[in-house]
Amino acid sequence: MAGIIKERLYTPGPTPLLMEGQARTLTATLHHRTEGFRRLLKETLENLRYYYNTKNDILIFSSSGTGAMEGAVSNLLSPGDRVLIGTAGKFGERWGQLAKAYSIDAVTVEVPYGQTLPIDEMTTKLKSDGPFRAVFIQATESSTGVRHDVEALAAEVKQHPETCLVVDAITGLGTTDLRPDEWGLDVVIGGSQKATMVPPGLAFASVSEKAWKQIAQSNLPRYYFDYAKERKNLAAGESSFTPATTLIVALHATLQYIREVGRENLIANAALLAEAARAAGTALGLKLFAESNPANAVTAIYAPPGMDSGLIVKEIRNRFGAIITNGQGSMKGKIFRLAHLGYYDFLDLVSVVTALEIALTQLGHSVQLGIGVRAAEQVYLHQLG
Amino acid sequence: MAGIIKERLYTPGPTPLLMEGQARTLTATLHHRTEGFRRLLKETLENLRYYYNTKNDILIFSSSGTGAMEGAVSNLLSPGDRVLIGTAGKFGERWGQLAKAYSIDAVTVEVPYGQTLPIDEMTTKLKSDGPFRAVFIQATESSTGVRHDVEALAAEVKQHPETCLVVDAITGLGTTDLRPDEWGLDVVIGGSQKATMVPPGLAFASVSEKAWKQIAQSNLPRYYFDYAKERKNLAAGESSFTPATTLIVALHATLQYIREVGRENLIANAALLAEAARAAGTALGLKLFAESNPANAVTAIYAPPGMDSGLIVKEIRNRFGAIITNGQGSMKGKIFRLAHLGYYDFLDLVSVVTALEIALTQLGHSVQLGIGVRAAEQVYLHQLG
Repeated sequence: MAGIIKERLYTPGPTPLLMEGQARTLTATLHHRTEGFRRLLKETLENLRYYYNTKNDILIFSSSGTGAMEGAVSNLLSPGDRVLIGTAGKFGERWGQLAKAYSIDAVTVEVPYGQTLPIDEMTTKLKSDGPFRAVFIQATESSTGVRHDVEALAAEVKQHPETCLVVDAITGLGTTDLRPDEWGLDVVIGGSQKATMVPPGLAFASVSEKAWKQIAQSNLPRYYFDYAKERKNLAAGESSFTPATTLIVALHATLQYIREVGRENLIANAALLAEAARAAGTALGLKLFAESNPANAVTAIYAPPGMDSGLIVKEIRNRFGAIITNGQGSMKGKIFRLAHLGYYDFLDLVSVVTALEIALTQLGHSVQLGIGVRAAEQVYLHQLG
Repeated sequence: MAGIIKERLYTPGPTPLLMEGQARTLTATLHHRTEGFRRLLKETLENLRYYYNTKNDILIFSSSGTGAMEGAVSNLLSPGDRVLIGTAGKFGERWGQLAKAYSIDAVTVEVPYGQTLPIDEMTTKLKSDGPFRAVFIQATESSTGVRHDVEALAAEVKQHPETCLVVDAITGLGTTDLRPDEWGLDVVIGGSQKATMVPPGLAFASVSEKAWKQIAQSNLPRYYFDYAKERKNLAAGESSFTPATTLIVALHATLQYIREVGRENLIANAALLAEAARAAGTALGLKLFAESNPANAVTAIYAPPGMDSGLIVKEIRNRFGAIITNGQGSMKGKIFRLAHLGYYDFLDLVSVVTALEIALTQLGHSVQLGIGVRAAEQVYLHQLG
């Protein structure tokens, strides 16, 4: 070990933890079948509704986000149903894998990694290839750093009373303006290790009245991720199975912090950091991976031509203890990803930009030192007006 | 609150805490009259010797560093003794106040804030104005960011068998190469809230054989800070009075971390950060306060002409939650101070440099954005060779 090196997370999950949330778990290790825990769980659900910007029911599962994604499939659908899937990256592909696992007939609109979903094409499919019981997309695709136009798609799905819209907003929540009630997002999936500043282990799902009606009629097999059972129990402040109590205690605390910060400010913070990250990458002469609609949660950037992006990830990790991520799937070795969501401030961003400038220099790719940080600072100052 | 703002300490004490140390206090709240605590205290003293780079006895008091400073005066001296004090800032003045409180005759070599002590002048006084029972200085003067030449002074004091050298190394330990045994530093004072990464509340003193002999003959009144009583009790793993148990538990953990990092690496880390801070300040067109011998613990920088340095401190605090400090005494409003000691890495430093660039810009002092960070990066890369 050479000198002091602090470990820092710049990944799209897990994200930096809010210490007040972690500390709370030390003094509130409640048993889950007590009045104290029931009250805490109900308050947590109420604050999740604020975080989600919805009046819909919200469910909490002790699982990673994928568990609630599977639940969306198994609860909304019946054998023989057809669904429409939009995929533009690793997490879009996961919807396809889930449909396949349940032998659901899926029509897929797929675009290459780095592109945003073509809503017009999805609209056409909706009209021509249906009827669909559900449409599945991401709000933001974490593997590519691209945001999809959820609002526009929702406006189209609304025209189809037989079709529910399911949005994986695991990295979208708290980073992007989402309006489940106004737009008509029937199921919205979230996870604890993202903008909620809590460790991994909890999945969330908001469920609309339209979705509940469909769930009542569907009959794919489900047990642990049974949405209706969980809704009924949660109404009484109970979870169906033993919940991850300390994670819920931490979430209770972090959601109070998020209420203090304000949902809109939390989103604006991610938007500012994302803009600064893009400005820094561009100033350093690097190419951004998102061709349009870059996400606020994470910025994907091409390595310089001829350089393996894994080397940049490794150099930053070894030298500064800072964890950024490689590309996923076909983009491994080509891009790297800097996240900037949750408990993450402007000085965190300039830290990772500095680490990037030094890593590139050390790897033999000469950059003008400080120019990425300067671009980030210019974005910061510009938003002050 | 606008977005996410993390609180960050860039002060010469308290300094950023090592969370592993803090966490340890949660599971080791021992009673102090037990075998477990005695063992922990003995290990802590052994590791403090490593940290101090000495084989001398080390004492721990539950007090701020000033308590152990007072103890150096009350334990080494008797009524009628004469001492030599070198003062170049607020903490040098404290030696004078302590001598006055105990009615000790003090000869003072004083230079203006920002200058290092003239060792030649102190040497002359040693020869002409003695005999002195003790000489008191700082290793680094935290109020001005200046290092004094302890080694050179010690070589002179060594020529005087009747004179002990007392060094306030509260910010010097862990940031500067100090060799108590080789150089002959008779009493070296430390504090917990500095490079040891622990909250305030503990003071340390290393005591040489020469000092113990003098202590045995001195008779100023003392009770709580009785060095000989504490030495005797600590040998058995006991403190004379109830110790601040959780701080000692934390210190036990942080000293283990410091052993892993290595004392020399800890010092080199501070030296690198100090060099980077000076380079950044200079690149931003600002004037450094230290005329020579800048300290590794803290860098003092003049505000731009006509600007109150308190505005910079306030802007950085309000905008980024980052705490830097104003000048002290006569330099209040003229300089600001960025510390970089203890659990503090290079990315922490570029964060505060970025905050400074933005604060100056917002206060109407135009700087070339990113140029301070660039200078810091150049220093970082240069040390890699």
